[in-house]
Amino acid sequence: MIELEQDGEVFVLTMAAGENRWNTTFVREFDAALDQVAASSGPAALLTRSADAKFFSNGLDLAWAGYGEQPPGDRNVFGAEFMALAGRLITLEVPTVCAVNGHGFGAGFMIALSHDERLMRADRGYLCANEIELGMTIPDAELALFRHKLPAAAFHQSVLLARRWGGADAVAAGVVQATASFDDLGNRALERARQLAPLARNRDAVRTMKERLYGENAVLNSPHGAAWLLQHAG
Amino acid sequence: MIELEQDGEVFVLTMAAGENRWNTTFVREFDAALDQVAASSGPAALLTRSADAKFFSNGLDLAWAGYGEQPPGDRNVFGAEFMALAGRLITLEVPTVCAVNGHGFGAGFMIALSHDERLMRADRGYLCANEIELGMTIPDAELALFRHKLPAAAFHQSVLLARRWGGADAVAAGVVQATASFDDLGNRALERARQLAPLARNRDAVRTMKERLYGENAVLNSPHGAAWLLQHAG
Amino acid sequence: MIELEQDGEVFVLTMAAGENRWNTTFVREFDAALDQVAASSGPAALLTRSADAKFFSNGLDLAWAGYGEQPPGDRNVFGAEFMALAGRLITLEVPTVCAVNGHGFGAGFMIALSHDERLMRADRGYLCANEIELGMTIPDAELALFRHKLPAAAFHQSVLLARRWGGADAVAAGVVQATASFDDLGNRALERARQLAPLARNRDAVRTMKERLYGENAVLNSPHGAAWLLQHAG
Repeated sequence: MIELEQDGEVFVLTMAAGENRWNTTFVREFDAALDQVAASSGPAALLTRSADAKFFSNGLDLAWAGYGEQPPGDRNVFGAEFMALAGRLITLEVPTVCAVNGHGFGAGFMIALSHDERLMRADRGYLCANEIELGMTIPDAELALFRHKLPAAAFHQSVLLARRWGGADAVAAGVVQATASFDDLGNRALERARQLAPLARNRDAVRTMKERLYGENAVLNSPHGAAWLLQHAG
Repeated sequence: MIELEQDGEVFVLTMAAGENRWNTTFVREFDAALDQVAASSGPAALLTRSADAKFFSNGLDLAWAGYGEQPPGDRNVFGAEFMALAGRLITLEVPTVCAVNGHGFGAGFMIALSHDERLMRADRGYLCANEIELGMTIPDAELALFRHKLPAAAFHQSVLLARRWGGADAVAAGVVQATASFDDLGNRALERARQLAPLARNRDAVRTMKERLYGENAVLNSPHGAAWLLQHAG
Repeated sequence: MIELEQDGEVFVLTMAAGENRWNTTFVREFDAALDQVAASSGPAALLTRSADAKFFSNGLDLAWAGYGEQPPGDRNVFGAEFMALAGRLITLEVPTVCAVNGHGFGAGFMIALSHDERLMRADRGYLCANEIELGMTIPDAELALFRHKLPAAAFHQSVLLARRWGGADAVAAGVVQATASFDDLGNRALERARQLAPLARNRDAVRTMKERLYGENAVLNSPHGAAWLLQHAG
């Protein structure tokens, strides 16, 4: 379901469950792979990709979530565990790159956004948070993730209007950092992960920076402005 | 002064007062039109446009505001009522599209920004918050609107330097979402409003989302960062 | 070390210390130049540039900071005084323009970002906050500066991944506002400063606006959202 390999300093995490829809088992396997990354030391980066040709990750596992009878015990904890996984990913102590080879919807878009950089296939596939199209609202934590990661104009179109971001639009709006052809995507993403791996030599610095950007009482959300903080930095 | 028509699922609001300058009567007519939109049910969108060929809305009605003698009673409430109208618009329970056919200055820029999407004429017309050029400061509420709607770099140029955004610059900076020729603008905006109208099938979801983005204690302004919220989402 | 000349309404501040690395003496000379700007009245703008052909400002004066024996007394106050200088600059009562003619690293990138607009040489030179590459974390006040100035996507790449922004990338991402050839940069920046100088006719308005964007309890960091502020503006 989740495969983890090492290619030099890069941990390559492959989601290998077809459309890569999310249920609690999938969350826990992904989380276990992050345990292995975290157990390493020295230069390293995480590259996340999909084994599927068309889908990066197509969102919640609806068939599983909609199971009508005696629910599996782990269904009740899905929401909290999935959100916590995204929270772990955005504060991971190594740089993280995501190769968006195809559609990333809902939870799939969230996981893509939880990486430090995204490379996206140029000619096909969409990133989209489609909750509002389904008449659903987006939870606070997911909203905060989108708000912290996206420029204001892209944020609104993503969460309020369920805009489908293709490669060219996504890179222009700052939703992804680069695009590539389907054939080049894997190598380009791997190359970029290699470039970033040296930052993980000092994992305390990486973790501390991410915690201060995204963590409890994040400096970005201080009631004080930049001038006040600059003038009281002593 | 304000005309409201229905074209299928789209409510077409036309500002038809020449330069469409704002005074209390204009605010109240606009607000009354929103009452009609809000009284509907099912799929719907609002499209706001101007009947003028050159001006979308040229700001405050200075002649009226500067009236030196016994003021009409409603002049004292203009500021609060205009700001409240913009606040209503950004939390309106249906998708909103704005066709910027010409100049939108000051209050006119604010109203354009209060819609979910903006289409702008490509070859002529500017959006501009020109308060600082007049030696005036921008009120807190207007600043917050600009900050929530615009990417950081565009925000600074808009509110501190009174940058005049033409169509091409505006779309590149995320100030508007698309441009069109003068001849195509009306149809393109109508088409876009039609595309978005189905979102209003669930008006509670639309209203709730907008309240959580922009309302009291908006999640976006939480002192906690995205990681903290994700890790405490259970 | 720091030269200040007047060219009509424009104060031209030239950093003339080779790579323009920052130590306490450099901070104090820059600050004294700002005193002269602040002592003026009427239309005015500040244009900051470098006398060097290759470097705008190459960061902290490492040789000075690393001095191993009896430290000069002013080394202990460097951090607080440098940060306060950046805080003064972002709230300066006249418009500020920066001509980035070459590399701006670390403190050099901060000072560039502390201006209202940046013009950058198109073909050579990088803006970069390289702390994370050195295993260092970025202080809260500097993070807040970057966050207030840069669109979200550019912010993350700058502070977490030490992205080196060349001219073309920088303007596309909103890190600078325009680029020019090396030969044109000086005149273009001077022309832009001249255009902005009239805003300083009302210095109270400029200062008040900047304080409300960046100062203590900046409106942008209010826990209340734009809709709440708009609806309670009366």
